[in-house]
Amino acid sequence: MNDLKLMVFQTDFGYKDSTVTAMYGVVKSVNRNLEIISSTHELPPFDIWSASYRLWQAMRFWPEGTVFVSVVDPGVGTFRKACAALTEDGYYIVTPDNGSLSHVMKYHGIREVREIDETVNRLRGKGTDGTAVFHGRDLFGYCAAKLAAGVISFAEVGPAYDVSEIVTLPLEEPTVTDIGISGIIEIDDPNFGNLFTNIPTELFLEQGFAYGDKVRVNILHGDEVVFERSLPFVRTFGEAEDGMPVLYNNEVLKLSLAVTQGSFAETYNIGFGSDWKIFLRSVK
Amino acid sequence: MNDLKLMVFQTDFGYKDSTVTAMYGVVKSVNRNLEIISSTHELPPFDIWSASYRLWQAMRFWPEGTVFVSVVDPGVGTFRKACAALTEDGYYIVTPDNGSLSHVMKYHGIREVREIDETVNRLRGKGTDGTAVFHGRDLFGYCAAKLAAGVISFAEVGPAYDVSEIVTLPLEEPTVTDIGISGIIEIDDPNFGNLFTNIPTELFLEQGFAYGDKVRVNILHGDEVVFERSLPFVRTFGEAEDGMPVLYNNEVLKLSLAVTQGSFAETYNIGFGSDWKIFLRSVK
Amino acid sequence: MNDLKLMVFQTDFGYKDSTVTAMYGVVKSVNRNLEIISSTHELPPFDIWSASYRLWQAMRFWPEGTVFVSVVDPGVGTFRKACAALTEDGYYIVTPDNGSLSHVMKYHGIREVREIDETVNRLRGKGTDGTAVFHGRDLFGYCAAKLAAGVISFAEVGPAYDVSEIVTLPLEEPTVTDIGISGIIEIDDPNFGNLFTNIPTELFLEQGFAYGDKVRVNILHGDEVVFERSLPFVRTFGEAEDGMPVLYNNEVLKLSLAVTQGSFAETYNIGFGSDWKIFLRSVK
Repeated sequence: MNDLKLMVFQTDFGYKDSTVTAMYGVVKSVNRNLEIISSTHELPPFDIWSASYRLWQAMRFWPEGTVFVSVVDPGVGTFRKACAALTEDGYYIVTPDNGSLSHVMKYHGIREVREIDETVNRLRGKGTDGTAVFHGRDLFGYCAAKLAAGVISFAEVGPAYDVSEIVTLPLEEPTVTDIGISGIIEIDDPNFGNLFTNIPTELFLEQGFAYGDKVRVNILHGDEVVFERSLPFVRTFGEAEDGMPVLYNNEVLKLSLAVTQGSFAETYNIGFGSDWKIFLRSVK
Repeated sequence: MNDLKLMVFQTDFGYKDSTVTAMYGVVKSVNRNLEIISSTHELPPFDIWSASYRLWQAMRFWPEGTVFVSVVDPGVGTFRKACAALTEDGYYIVTPDNGSLSHVMKYHGIREVREIDETVNRLRGKGTDGTAVFHGRDLFGYCAAKLAAGVISFAEVGPAYDVSEIVTLPLEEPTVTDIGISGIIEIDDPNFGNLFTNIPTELFLEQGFAYGDKVRVNILHGDEVVFERSLPFVRTFGEAEDGMPVLYNNEVLKLSLAVTQGSFAETYNIGFGSDWKIFLRSVK
Repeated sequence: MNDLKLMVFQTDFGYKDSTVTAMYGVVKSVNRNLEIISSTHELPPFDIWSASYRLWQAMRFWPEGTVFVSVVDPGVGTFRKACAALTEDGYYIVTPDNGSLSHVMKYHGIREVREIDETVNRLRGKGTDGTAVFHGRDLFGYCAAKLAAGVISFAEVGPAYDVSEIVTLPLEEPTVTDIGISGIIEIDDPNFGNLFTNIPTELFLEQGFAYGDKVRVNILHGDEVVFERSLPFVRTFGEAEDGMPVLYNNEVLKLSLAVTQGSFAETYNIGFGSDWKIFLRSVK
C-alpha cells in the first residue's frame, strides 16, 4: 500500500477559496500517491502562537515520520527563514521559522533543522515566478511533498543550522506559592468556548487539590480582576448542571475552564494570552 | 488496493483547532492505510438531533461495510454508553448511545449493538490517561479504527446489549386529515436556509396534490401562527422567480420550503424542531 | 498504487450538514478506490462567477487528467445543460454549463464538451428518483466518478456539442491609456481581505511602474469615488508597516490590494465585480 510519508497541513488560509487547493495540487503533482490530511486551515490569521500550539496539540498522536506543514506566515517573502525541522521523536515539520516551532521544540525537542534551499526546492513555472506572497504553495508545500515522497532526503532540504537559532515565543510556566497556583490562560477551544490554562493538572493535584473540591478562581486581564468565583473541580461536564462554570482536566492534561453546554469565553468575556493571568487557591 | 473499511466522521468539534487532527492521528496510528472521510465537523454543538439526522441523511449512499463515527457527546465521561452498532443493511456506527442512532434505527434498522469495552478498546498512554473529556480521540476514534482495520472483530468491540435498550429521540410522524396534512419542520439546510418537513412527498401526492398546485401553508411556533401563505408546489427552483417562497420535494424526498436564491429560514424567521408545526391544505 | 483519476470538488454546499457526504458516498460506491479532494465547499451561494474563478485559480497545479467537479447550480433541474468538458491541456471538468467554465475556457481552452446523458449517467434508486434539486449527488458526482474510475470513457458521457455554445460570463480586460491603467476588482481573497484586480502585473511593469514606486489608486463603485490614495507597490507585505494599505503582485500574477496584517476589503469597505473599477497612475 502507500509507503510514502503522511502529510498533515495547517494554515490560516481559510476554506472559502482555492488557495489550499492550489497548494495540494502542487503536492499531488510531485507524487500522485501522497496522502494529504487537512488539520485546520482556520487558524486565526497571522497568529503564530496558535500555529505553534495547534501543531504540538495533535502531533504525538500521529505515526512517526509524518510530515507536518504549518503555514502561518505574516513575514512571507521577508528575512525569516523557511525551514524543515526533525523532532527528537521522528516527526518532520516544514514551516516558516517564525515562532511556529516553539511548543514542539520545548515538548518534543528538535534534533535537526535545515533552511530550505530555494534554488532547488522552490516550485518554478506554472505562473509562480515573480510572486513572493504564496510560499505555502511555492515553497513549503512543494518542498514538503518532495521530502514526503522521498524525492529528496532530509539533508537535501538545504543547509543545517544550529537548533539554538530557531525563533521561539516565550512559553510561560505556572508558579506554585503558599496560597495556591498562578498561571496564564494559554489558548481557547474556539468551538466550545473552553479556555485552557498553562497549569498541568498533575501539578495542581500535587498541591493537594482533588476532584470534587471547590476552587477559588481569579482571572486578571492586565491589572483588572475580570473573574472571581469559586468553581467545582470536575472530571466530566455531566457532574455540573447545564450552564454552570467548572474547572476540569482537559484533553492535553492541563487545567481548563468551561461552561457546561455553553461557552466560558463568551459568558464571561475572557480571552487568552500572557496578559490573561489566572490564580487558583483552596476555598477551605 | 485499499481493502480496509472506509471511515466517515461527523462531530461538533469545528474546524478551527487540531481536535479533529488528534482524533485522525489516532486512527492513522492504528493503521496507516485507513481512509478517512470528513463528513461534517460543524454539527451544532451538543445537538444530538442533528447528529442523528445527518448520519441517516447520507448513509445509504456509502458502500456496505463503511464505518461511521459520530461524536456529538454532551454527556462525555458520564453514564451514557459508548457503543458500536451494525445496521440491518451492513453499516457500522461508533457513537455515544445518546439518541444519535434514532433515525438510523428507524429507517435502516439496527441488527446488533455492542458496548465498547474500555479495558481493551480505549487508547492508553500519549498523555491520554486521566482525561475524561475527549472520547472522540481516546475511545470512539480509536475503537472504530481497530474495527475498520480488522484489528478487532465486531464481537470484540465489547458485550452486546439488547437493541431495544438503544436511546432514541421521538421521531414525529405527519398526520393526514380531511382538510390536509400536518407535520413538523424537522431540520434545516443550514447553507441555503431551506427547511425540511417530516412529510414524505409521496404521502402528499397521494392526497391529490400535484406539481404546479398552489398550496396553503400555515406554520405555527408553539401556539402562534408565524407564517400563512399560499405557495406554489414546484419541481425545481427555476420555476419560480428569484426571491419567491416555494414548496418542493427535497433531496431526501420530503416536502420542503425554500426561497429561490435566498433563505426561507432567515426571510421568515422560522426554525425547526417539534414545536414548529406545519399545516398544508389545498387552495381550491 | 492508485491509477484512477484524482477527483477535486468545489461547491456552494457548505460544511454544516451531510450534503457533501452524500455526494462523496455516491463516488465511493462507484469505486471504493477513487481519491476525493475537497477544494472548497464554501463558494458564495449561487455565485457562478466565483465558481469559474476558483476553478481556474488552482487547476494548473494539478496533474493532467484530474477530474474537477464544480457545482454552483442555481438553475438545477432547469434548461441549463449538465456537461463534462476536456481542456486543451488535459483536465476534465464536470459542471452545469452555466458560466462556470468561463475562466477555464479563456485561459486553458476547451478541446471538447459533452452533455451528460441522464438516461445512463444519472444515479437511480436509493431514494433519488423523483427529486430534481441535488444534481451534485445524482448527476455530477455520479457521472464524474464513472469517468474518473474508467467505467465510462469521455465519449460515453453523452453527445458532444460545439465548444462555442458553452455559456460564458464576460471577462473584462484592463485598458492602458496615456495616464495609466484601468481595470476592475475581479475577486477577493475572502480570508485575508485582499482584493485582486484583473490587471496583470507584467502589463503594469511594462508601462514603466517599478517595485518601490508610489502609485495613485482610485477606486470607483459605479460613478462614486470610494477610494483615492497613493500606495506603495511592494514585493512583500513585510516592506510596509502593519496596518498599511499596499499594492502588490498576487499569487496569480495580478495587481492586488492588501492591508498588511489586516483586511483591505473591510478597512475601506470595497467589494468586487464589474461595477468596481480601479485606476492606477504614476505619482511622479
